[in-house]
Amino acid sequence: MTREVRNISKTANLPPGSLIYTGEADGQKLILTTYDSMELSRRKITTIREFLEDENKGIRWLDVIGLSNVEVIKELSNELSIHPLAQEDILNTSQSPKIEDFENYLFLITKNIFKREEGFFDSEHICILLYSNCVITFQEYDTDSFYHIHKRLEEGKLLRANGADDLFYSLLDSVVDNYFLLLEGLGSEIDRVEDELLENPNKEILNKIYRLKRELIYLRNILWPMRNLTNTLSRGESKLIDDQTIRYFKDIYDHIIQMIDIVETYREICSGMLDTYLSSIGSKTNEVMKILTIFSAIFIPLTFLAGVYGMNFKFFPELNWQFGYFGFWILSIVITLGMIKFLKGKGWL
Amino acid sequence: MTREVRNISKTANLPPGSLIYTGEADGQKLILTTYDSMELSRRKITTIREFLEDENKGIRWLDVIGLSNVEVIKELSNELSIHPLAQEDILNTSQSPKIEDFENYLFLITKNIFKREEGFFDSEHICILLYSNCVITFQEYDTDSFYHIHKRLEEGKLLRANGADDLFYSLLDSVVDNYFLLLEGLGSEIDRVEDELLENPNKEILNKIYRLKRELIYLRNILWPMRNLTNTLSRGESKLIDDQTIRYFKDIYDHIIQMIDIVETYREICSGMLDTYLSSIGSKTNEVMKILTIFSAIFIPLTFLAGVYGMNFKFFPELNWQFGYFGFWILSIVITLGMIKFLKGKGWL
Amino acid sequence: MTREVRNISKTANLPPGSLIYTGEADGQKLILTTYDSMELSRRKITTIREFLEDENKGIRWLDVIGLSNVEVIKELSNELSIHPLAQEDILNTSQSPKIEDFENYLFLITKNIFKREEGFFDSEHICILLYSNCVITFQEYDTDSFYHIHKRLEEGKLLRANGADDLFYSLLDSVVDNYFLLLEGLGSEIDRVEDELLENPNKEILNKIYRLKRELIYLRNILWPMRNLTNTLSRGESKLIDDQTIRYFKDIYDHIIQMIDIVETYREICSGMLDTYLSSIGSKTNEVMKILTIFSAIFIPLTFLAGVYGMNFKFFPELNWQFGYFGFWILSIVITLGMIKFLKGKGWL
Amino acid sequence: MTREVRNISKTANLPPGSLIYTGEADGQKLILTTYDSMELSRRKITTIREFLEDENKGIRWLDVIGLSNVEVIKELSNELSIHPLAQEDILNTSQSPKIEDFENYLFLITKNIFKREEGFFDSEHICILLYSNCVITFQEYDTDSFYHIHKRLEEGKLLRANGADDLFYSLLDSVVDNYFLLLEGLGSEIDRVEDELLENPNKEILNKIYRLKRELIYLRNILWPMRNLTNTLSRGESKLIDDQTIRYFKDIYDHIIQMIDIVETYREICSGMLDTYLSSIGSKTNEVMKILTIFSAIFIPLTFLAGVYGMNFKFFPELNWQFGYFGFWILSIVITLGMIKFLKGKGWL
Amino acid sequence: MTREVRNISKTANLPPGSLIYTGEADGQKLILTTYDSMELSRRKITTIREFLEDENKGIRWLDVIGLSNVEVIKELSNELSIHPLAQEDILNTSQSPKIEDFENYLFLITKNIFKREEGFFDSEHICILLYSNCVITFQEYDTDSFYHIHKRLEEGKLLRANGADDLFYSLLDSVVDNYFLLLEGLGSEIDRVEDELLENPNKEILNKIYRLKRELIYLRNILWPMRNLTNTLSRGESKLIDDQTIRYFKDIYDHIIQMIDIVETYREICSGMLDTYLSSIGSKTNEVMKILTIFSAIFIPLTFLAGVYGMNFKFFPELNWQFGYFGFWILSIVITLGMIKFLKGKGWL
Repeated sequence: MTREVRNISKTANLPPGSLIYTGEADGQKLILTTYDSMELSRRKITTIREFLEDENKGIRWLDVIGLSNVEVIKELSNELSIHPLAQEDILNTSQSPKIEDFENYLFLITKNIFKREEGFFDSEHICILLYSNCVITFQEYDTDSFYHIHKRLEEGKLLRANGADDLFYSLLDSVVDNYFLLLEGLGSEIDRVEDELLENPNKEILNKIYRLKRELIYLRNILWPMRNLTNTLSRGESKLIDDQTIRYFKDIYDHIIQMIDIVETYREICSGMLDTYLSSIGSKTNEVMKILTIFSAIFIPLTFLAGVYGMNFKFFPELNWQFGYFGFWILSIVITLGMIKFLKGKGWL
Repeated sequence: MTREVRNISKTANLPPGSLIYTGEADGQKLILTTYDSMELSRRKITTIREFLEDENKGIRWLDVIGLSNVEVIKELSNELSIHPLAQEDILNTSQSPKIEDFENYLFLITKNIFKREEGFFDSEHICILLYSNCVITFQEYDTDSFYHIHKRLEEGKLLRANGADDLFYSLLDSVVDNYFLLLEGLGSEIDRVEDELLENPNKEILNKIYRLKRELIYLRNILWPMRNLTNTLSRGESKLIDDQTIRYFKDIYDHIIQMIDIVETYREICSGMLDTYLSSIGSKTNEVMKILTIFSAIFIPLTFLAGVYGMNFKFFPELNWQFGYFGFWILSIVITLGMIKFLKGKGWL
Repeated sequence: MTREVRNISKTANLPPGSLIYTGEADGQKLILTTYDSMELSRRKITTIREFLEDENKGIRWLDVIGLSNVEVIKELSNELSIHPLAQEDILNTSQSPKIEDFENYLFLITKNIFKREEGFFDSEHICILLYSNCVITFQEYDTDSFYHIHKRLEEGKLLRANGADDLFYSLLDSVVDNYFLLLEGLGSEIDRVEDELLENPNKEILNKIYRLKRELIYLRNILWPMRNLTNTLSRGESKLIDDQTIRYFKDIYDHIIQMIDIVETYREICSGMLDTYLSSIGSKTNEVMKILTIFSAIFIPLTFLAGVYGMNFKFFPELNWQFGYFGFWILSIVITLGMIKFLKGKGWL
Repeated sequence: MTREVRNISKTANLPPGSLIYTGEADGQKLILTTYDSMELSRRKITTIREFLEDENKGIRWLDVIGLSNVEVIKELSNELSIHPLAQEDILNTSQSPKIEDFENYLFLITKNIFKREEGFFDSEHICILLYSNCVITFQEYDTDSFYHIHKRLEEGKLLRANGADDLFYSLLDSVVDNYFLLLEGLGSEIDRVEDELLENPNKEILNKIYRLKRELIYLRNILWPMRNLTNTLSRGESKLIDDQTIRYFKDIYDHIIQMIDIVETYREICSGMLDTYLSSIGSKTNEVMKILTIFSAIFIPLTFLAGVYGMNFKFFPELNWQFGYFGFWILSIVITLGMIKFLKGKGWL
Repeated sequence: MTREVRNISKTANLPPGSLIYTGEADGQKLILTTYDSMELSRRKITTIREFLEDENKGIRWLDVIGLSNVEVIKELSNELSIHPLAQEDILNTSQSPKIEDFENYLFLITKNIFKREEGFFDSEHICILLYSNCVITFQEYDTDSFYHIHKRLEEGKLLRANGADDLFYSLLDSVVDNYFLLLEGLGSEIDRVEDELLENPNKEILNKIYRLKRELIYLRNILWPMRNLTNTLSRGESKLIDDQTIRYFKDIYDHIIQMIDIVETYREICSGMLDTYLSSIGSKTNEVMKILTIFSAIFIPLTFLAGVYGMNFKFFPELNWQFGYFGFWILSIVITLGMIKFLKGKGWL
């Protein structure tokens, strides 16, 4: 479960710029989308050359899906003179989100969250490079993450009329929207656990809360670097980003801030639930103990008494008394009433 | 209960500026109030056109109650050229408080707290737009939130002589005053729980503390963005706000700061109460256990002894002794006294 | 006990500057003290007019004791043109300490701590206005808070030779000194509770720690705004305060900082004591359980054995053996020794 | 134990500059050391006059040991025109470390830690005044704190060739070195407690951890103001300190920073140990309970069964069966095996 | 285990610049590596003189392995005029990482982590001095820490063509890479403990979590000063470091930041695991108690009843009833059913 530093040993003690894919996914495909306000073409290509020789005048978007074929990435990097450290980061799936400005291109690393199966979310490593009229994306898994972007491009919505920076924004916005979906999912789960907790706290809750906390820690670890990243973008220092687009990055930044607040709130709620669970267990144990003590306190002396009159001593005067047995019951009732009074005094009855 | 991200999935993966109401309330009405120091008129209107064509020279205040009719909001937004991202925020009831300065208008989002039923508070999404001589408010629910403002306008108090920024201030002040009411309510509840805790800690307390903590987290999540918002206003950077009004915004800012301190204090008190409850439960369990152990330690050996003399062995010398039974009681008393001494040594008696 | 927002609802939803006294104390008296290095006069006055018409050339100090008579305060405020928001703050006893510079006067709110009865501290709302040669103080209760100042004035100590700012400093210093007294009292109480805790932890400790924590939270809530307030004063931005007096305000500021450190230290000590108490209760319960289990583990099998030989079966060979009873004791001792070995193996004996 | 605000009430509500010694130590002696690179003289003097009239050209160091004789300190202060607030601080042993620059002299307050008896550390109030060629030190106790400095001066090491600022540095360095000794002592104690905890957690640990935490809080409260103090010194703003000496103050500053880190680390370790202890107690109680429950679950039904066949009913068919007693044992074994299976299913055996 | 301040007392109260080795390792060897893009030579030398008289024009790297021979270090320091405080730091193995710029050389202290035996990591004190064309390293242990650097130099990779600052970078990068390896190891251990915790929490977990927390605290204490150090380097203020190398130091800085985040995340996970363990123990104890109470509640009254009918009273009517024994069983079943109903009402069955 510690998704934080998986397979990092693969790259340790290698010279900087060594290209090693640290993830586990196989396969690779290249999707080239070119568009301007008039036309839109989208096709699968097999070599980097096809992308480099494409002569469309509009905006070109190369989507590299799967990082296992290091050679292709090396070739592409060399053709576009991507900095060796950036190349390394494209392949290092443990790298946390960051943005770097290399004069003629912006290099952004982020994490996309997608639903692998019902109720189970996974994240993938995504890199986006923004050139003046070209965007290159690297996705770790083939998960159709940018489905909504493709759809919007096809439907000819505003997007196509704008520059590459608008595509860049849309890709980032789409990634961030997925965080909201995860957050809403976690919120519903918290609601359910909370109801269980207040009505009928049981042992299952513990694992549920633990898993919620883990998810929240993981999400927070993505959101914090995303905060710095979007803050950098919303300050608008790069010349690749249009002034009008900046307010939109500011909007993403605000969303990230709000999500961080929500994550912190959720984490507090989880801690609160754990505390409440712990107290409620303590409280229940106390109640169980009380019942046990009440039964014991009442019957232990009586059982002793019955034991006494069950003894076989030859010389045992009470046994021969006529009202001995009757007297035993009287004595038992007196002891019981005394005990009840004692326990009531303790506030246990 | 997680009011933080309700229905956010409705707007995910849509292009920016998509207008989707994320709340759940139905109905919509438009109230137009126009006034100057001489006259005051207040009427219900049915179309945006009525507002746009109103030719009063004084200050106009359009109050849009209910956000379900997205078309009306879209029409109004287009007429007044409200920024697409602001339009989105008017309808997104999960959006936390913020203020944005769009040159010719100020756009403010806040949350109003109102009493739905006895002892139960709810919050609603409120947006306020300030133009040079016009204020537009959007309220999620029809809750008469601005009753005091209407009353003050009618009574001709100072308010009517001043500009739209003063109405804007009064609306915000009225929203913030409601936080104090909630805070006072929570304070009284804390008092009650605290008394119960110190006198007679019981299981109910746990849920009460938990709910208090939840309310406080929720209130804090409103207050923190309100802090930034009022801070921005009290710096007086907008030309729509008069210099003399700034000190009043500074006053609201001070109130928010004080409330944040109180909320933090209340949260610490709640944590302290939970810790104390946990310790007190531990302490009570300990006491229960002691009683049980005392009874057991005294009677278990005695019962064994009685059991021994209840055995039916043929050759059982003690049973035939004349003072056997008497001796049994002597032995029992000796054992009991020994036990009492032992338990006193432990400090349990 | 939540002294944080008492009666705040009285002022909610009123226009700014509404004068409502939120405290609970009755009565009001006005003491006018005038002095210069030569003369000192101190008298009770009944109307504001007497103060306004006083023609002494030295320094005038008007002490308004009790805030219930709102009319007097309103009259005074109007004569001296005190800002409406400041007027409101004079009467709002929930307002936390702050300082505001209104060009021709400094307006300071603080809280004085006084001993109501043995071991019980209470706080009162105090406002101080500093004019160039006049000081006005508002006290909530008639508690002789400034006794030491009056005494020092009478004794003709340095104080009388200096300006109004020195009186202002002395008043503030006197208020802050009282915090030290409370802190020392809390320190002694912590010492006592600590000794009890390490020697003989009992149930009373819990409530004591809880009350200590509450007092510390309350004191901290006064000290933090006082820190900002004295910091502002020690920066010496007001022209009403002489340059030489600034080092004295810096000294108060240092004291406040030190007290905040002590309060935080005390709070940690209290938390530490609570943790230790909780652990010690757990530890004691464990010990009680061990004793119970030891007794049960040894006697339960023996009692069963005695029960077996107490059965009345007709065909019961052991009962008729000559050494049956003797054998029973041998068996009992073997079982007991086995149990003791088992329990020693567990480390319980 | 609350060494934080001892006897502070003695000085409360007195005018600034009132000289009251708040400590408890008796006795006072004055040691005057004068030296240059050629000569060194060290003698006990009885009056301040001797110091003032000393005509050595080298560096003079007056060491005032014991603060009980306030008159001597008052005389010295007046002769050297020490600021009234500084005078007050010399005598106020609760004052935390600070440095103040009074143009012609530097005034520094620190706390020295010394070993009173084996394993028990105490602290004393120390003030150092640095003039251009003279150093005056005030020590609360006669503890030979500056033994190493005297020795180094006698041995003619580098120290004597340098200015008064180097002596000042050496004194401060010597004080700070003692913190390392305390820290090392606490580290060893933590090691021991940790070993005990992991091998055989017992009740004593609780008090040990509590005392460690207290020592650490106390040390931290000294180190934090020392951090500000050495930071001020290493910025080299005073003209009394030579530029070359500044790097040495920077070195002390680095040591303080490292010690603060270590103290925080130790505090976390202590918290961790407490948590672990608490969990381990919970775990042991659980184990004890299991044993008790296992014994009870097995023998309670059997004892009941034996009790049944010990009843004296006239008409009791089983008692007369030939294999009744044998059957009882069969039944007992069946019940026991069933119980063992049940308990194994619970994972308790 | 407290590796934080080992043997620091050796250096306390000595004048600054006293050379005392505070570590415990024996032996010392000197390795001199000289290279340029053409040639590479690596040899063991025995005296400092050999290093000083070496006349290679390329880059010289002297690796001093083992710090026990203080004389050699003193000689070297004097020849290169290393600052006395830096000399002290070379030998003080408790000194935490830092960097200092002494105009003509950069002095860096770091900690290298190496695997002593399987699953057990240790750290060593490493100092690196960077001159314009020479690097001197001091290692505490002979652990082949720079094996990868030697290998890369031999393989003639890019490294040899660059300046001494690139060697300096490579050495630091190699040290930092080892932190990732430790972190990955801790991550795997956390995974294992987490699985155990959720499936079958046992007592061993407690010590494992405790040790994990200790390792994390230790690692964090190395990483925080490393953060400052690499931040200083990446600001590129030293003229000994080439502008192109700065981005590489920035890359190390980013890695340190990411590792700090991971360490904090791991620490939270450990805390979460401890909380969960504590709750789960509480929960298990509760379950054990329930079983005990159920058995006791059912059988204690029955055993009493059996005891009653085992009494030997002469006049005991029930014993002579024909259906007495039968009635006893009826009564027993009724009591049992009543108990079961009672326990079901409590939700325990």
